[in-house]
Amino acid sequence: MSKDRITVSEIIEGIKPVDTVWVEKARKRTARLVIPPRALGRLHDISEQLCGIGKTLEPSIDRKAFLVMAGDHGVAAEGVSAFPQQVTGEMIRCFLMGGAGINILAGQAGADVYVVDMGIIPDLDPLTLEGGERLHIEKIAPGTQSFSQGPAMTLEQAKASVIAGFKHASALLEAGTDILGTGDMGIGNTTPSAAIGAVVTGASLDDMVGRGTGIDDSGLILKKKIIQKGIEINRPMVHNGLDILAKIGGFEIGGIAGVILAAAYHGKPVMIDGFISTAGALIAQALCPESVQYILAGHCSEEPGHRIMLDHLGLRPILDLGMRLGEGTGGALAMNIVEGAIRIFRNMLTFDQAGVSEGA
Amino acid sequence: MSKDRITVSEIIEGIKPVDTVWVEKARKRTARLVIPPRALGRLHDISEQLCGIGKTLEPSIDRKAFLVMAGDHGVAAEGVSAFPQQVTGEMIRCFLMGGAGINILAGQAGADVYVVDMGIIPDLDPLTLEGGERLHIEKIAPGTQSFSQGPAMTLEQAKASVIAGFKHASALLEAGTDILGTGDMGIGNTTPSAAIGAVVTGASLDDMVGRGTGIDDSGLILKKKIIQKGIEINRPMVHNGLDILAKIGGFEIGGIAGVILAAAYHGKPVMIDGFISTAGALIAQALCPESVQYILAGHCSEEPGHRIMLDHLGLRPILDLGMRLGEGTGGALAMNIVEGAIRIFRNMLTFDQAGVSEGA
Repeated sequence: MSKDRITVSEIIEGIKPVDTVWVEKARKRTARLVIPPRALGRLHDISEQLCGIGKTLEPSIDRKAFLVMAGDHGVAAEGVSAFPQQVTGEMIRCFLMGGAGINILAGQAGADVYVVDMGIIPDLDPLTLEGGERLHIEKIAPGTQSFSQGPAMTLEQAKASVIAGFKHASALLEAGTDILGTGDMGIGNTTPSAAIGAVVTGASLDDMVGRGTGIDDSGLILKKKIIQKGIEINRPMVHNGLDILAKIGGFEIGGIAGVILAAAYHGKPVMIDGFISTAGALIAQALCPESVQYILAGHCSEEPGHRIMLDHLGLRPILDLGMRLGEGTGGALAMNIVEGAIRIFRNMLTFDQAGVSEGA
Repeated sequence: MSKDRITVSEIIEGIKPVDTVWVEKARKRTARLVIPPRALGRLHDISEQLCGIGKTLEPSIDRKAFLVMAGDHGVAAEGVSAFPQQVTGEMIRCFLMGGAGINILAGQAGADVYVVDMGIIPDLDPLTLEGGERLHIEKIAPGTQSFSQGPAMTLEQAKASVIAGFKHASALLEAGTDILGTGDMGIGNTTPSAAIGAVVTGASLDDMVGRGTGIDDSGLILKKKIIQKGIEINRPMVHNGLDILAKIGGFEIGGIAGVILAAAYHGKPVMIDGFISTAGALIAQALCPESVQYILAGHCSEEPGHRIMLDHLGLRPILDLGMRLGEGTGGALAMNIVEGAIRIFRNMLTFDQAGVSEGA
């Protein structure tokens, strides 16, 4: 496709802020709906954001797709996860079989699920696997290097991961997808995500680092030590998204940043999920602050640093249900709320149409 | 129908606690799903509650219905609402036309919407109104008396309102409805709801009383004064649900309490909405504490006392989106989350089925 040779700089140059004129037009329509002023709260904010993004008073998310970005992590070998690294590849097979959390919740929302191998260790063959047509191979490398020993990847690999995410997202958007959701799979990936969160937001590791899939107290202490060491060794530059990604990131995190940039580039909304997707959003924000205007934050995760990240992005999560699975599940569930917001905006009668008296 | 002559005492005697054995069986199934332990948080709690309620490992909410209970309030004449009282009847016409918030969000969730005239001032004719087949007339009286002057209704009227709610809910449940949602319409009804909330929870009026549809500062001061006066004059008995309902309640609030008791009586779940529905739940709880085990709390309203009421009931709201419309809208939106919880519980693969390695 035509975007194959695009550079990260060209992507950033192509992103414009959301049109506030259309947001204002949308607010005027909301004010005529047969309810007390803005009585459906966040639903109005969501529908008006979509109007601004789409430059329309008829927003739609009929065609939805999730891109689950997968990668392995050198740092996983250091005991930061409760699950063995082979689970990354095993779970991708489960996604392709259709039996994982993201399949079920995306299915409920009427969204397609695609998986991108951004850099997992095993080689999965789309041609022979059940559901392989949903798997795209963009393997930057078979897992990152451990960022506690040096950079997780080269700067070229960081760029390549962002561009790969951009490319796959662009293909879906150019084919008519109305909204993208980001998902992730990668045993150990709360570790680079927490590192990114701490560096970008300035939060302490005590506030930012959590138990991920469920490590115990000693594992949590080890995880913080490893992140601390990785940040000290690598000294990522706080405002340089590619530098942060290369030094302490992950291939799937770069891919997620690319998906977000693609949505902004194409003027479409993107639904982020939990801790790892939000680390990707921090990278996207560092690369292009305007890209955040195209983001909907699906939920607030149980991972303690997630809310700090969302605050830094200026995003309010739609759901807060104690979820901490990733895969895109929180975003998929939140799609139902966005659909409700759109239906209210488009289909509710106005005071005039309903023949109802207005308030004082 | 056969339940026409049932008494409130007979309803209460027919309610059993939720079966914890089935909740425990459900938790064991959750533990085998291909996710870290309970990684989908509240979704697991919801599906397991439904398993307990239904004594099943295959919970379903395929058939959903909302009962919007409507009533007028004598206290509305005292300037406690930003909207004129005629809006109660006007909005019911809008519900029957299908153009209000509850119609749209219930429609998204695949739920039917029925309206019960529990005691509005105008006489609406189901036979001549558009959509009138969705309107049931149980008019206890054309509006309550102002509880700032004396009791809102007689004890007999309070009983009749609970039994009317029970009767309509029972008819739907006996016809195969899997889950009921409660809704409300009644200009001024945050005033009796706040009075009930303050009396039952012991919270101060400053904490419990909010702006409803949007009164200004002086209106809020007046509203608190009127509630204070109503409580002082009537001296409702804190643990007597019918006494509270009669003295400071409303016909639709009694109806909602009856719907909740019906769900518990028939062993089915009931989704409550915001401030008014939750005042109904406080009456149901006072009448029969076990009935609360059958409740799902759809959302936390912007009305400040709502969270205090939910805490008193021991219920955690599913959504928190700054909504304050009533009608059942928060519950309707939350139905999507409950549907997601059920699909996760029933359709996700287990570790064994997915061939995925388990954690440490």
